[in-house]
Amino acid sequence: MSKFTITPRTRLRRLHKRGAFDHATVHAIIDEGYVCHVGARMADRQMVQPTIHWRDADTLYIHGSSKNGFFAALERGEEACVTITHFDGLVLARSAFHHSVNYRCAMIFGKARKVTDDTEKMAALEGLIERIAPGRWNEIRQPDAQELKATTVLAFVIDEVSAKVRNGPPVDDAEDYALPVWAGVVPFELRSGAPITDPGPE
Amino acid sequence: MSKFTITPRTRLRRLHKRGAFDHATVHAIIDEGYVCHVGARMADRQMVQPTIHWRDADTLYIHGSSKNGFFAALERGEEACVTITHFDGLVLARSAFHHSVNYRCAMIFGKARKVTDDTEKMAALEGLIERIAPGRWNEIRQPDAQELKATTVLAFVIDEVSAKVRNGPPVDDAEDYALPVWAGVVPFELRSGAPITDPGPE
Repeated sequence: MSKFTITPRTRLRRLHKRGAFDHATVHAIIDEGYVCHVGARMADRQMVQPTIHWRDADTLYIHGSSKNGFFAALERGEEACVTITHFDGLVLARSAFHHSVNYRCAMIFGKARKVTDDTEKMAALEGLIERIAPGRWNEIRQPDAQELKATTVLAFVIDEVSAKVRNGPPVDDAEDYALPVWAGVVPFELRSGAPITDPGPE
Repeated sequence: MSKFTITPRTRLRRLHKRGAFDHATVHAIIDEGYVCHVGARMADRQMVQPTIHWRDADTLYIHGSSKNGFFAALERGEEACVTITHFDGLVLARSAFHHSVNYRCAMIFGKARKVTDDTEKMAALEGLIERIAPGRWNEIRQPDAQELKATTVLAFVIDEVSAKVRNGPPVDDAEDYALPVWAGVVPFELRSGAPITDPGPE
């Protein structure tokens, strides 16, 4: 099993059993998600911005308007953390203390690289569209020069990364199992619904 | 309609039409979510950590182990941003450029206050359990002194906050509406499933 190298930034201080560093687990968490949360400093502010992400091998891409001030901060080399989280369920224990959440999350540390080469940029945008709807890139109008210029694509190398996973039932203290209260998991899932056709203008 | 005051940190630089500052919209976005993403610096690192959150009036609470290093950084007064995001759908336009995401998000800026008063702490934890499962607090074993000590509760005042919302169909360039490609929205929703009873130990 191939694994990511654990660094001072990705080593878990507590709950080591929840840690996951193998490529397959980390990539699966990233690929299942549509929206990541990107954190970085921006002037006087701490920001955490949600945005759509996609992956190509060991590169995580995000994109935005070339006028996006937060992206400009990332381009300038602010240290960033990109987190992808799946909320899988509420864990209802017999004691308040052992209530928990089932989840899977991946945290990627590093600095963004601005994609300046138009060929890579176009390939990355194709990757986004194909990730959303396979086969769609060749059906739609692809970006023209002006649209390409108006779009910033940022890349993060997925190498300094950790994942955490909690699943399964609650774990109560031995003496609490006898308490007369329901305990278990309420699972949650992100599901897609029936597509809604755009009637178009007017 | 009561509104939050717009500050330099919450003023939207672009896409003003997506901004929302009224209390009802912001509170609804916060209350519908289970998991927020908290961003702050922690020593040499930028962190974005997912965690469960809940609200009482204009206070947002999060909690964690008293040994959590990231929480310790927040306690020391690191500037933080707490973002709650709902991913509502993929917006498939006729041009690559106008593809988008339907979402609702709230971003809260500020510093955490550690809840040190045990009465407030206990009331906050009751608020968490009741938010997850109304009526449950009086059915379960409530935290004892040791568990209370092992738990850190942090509070953020919800005052410097902004929300962004995008919904509805794609908005394409006029000349693209004639393109022979399906366009519309694929809605997504976080749904709970049938509860899974914990069989208990062994």
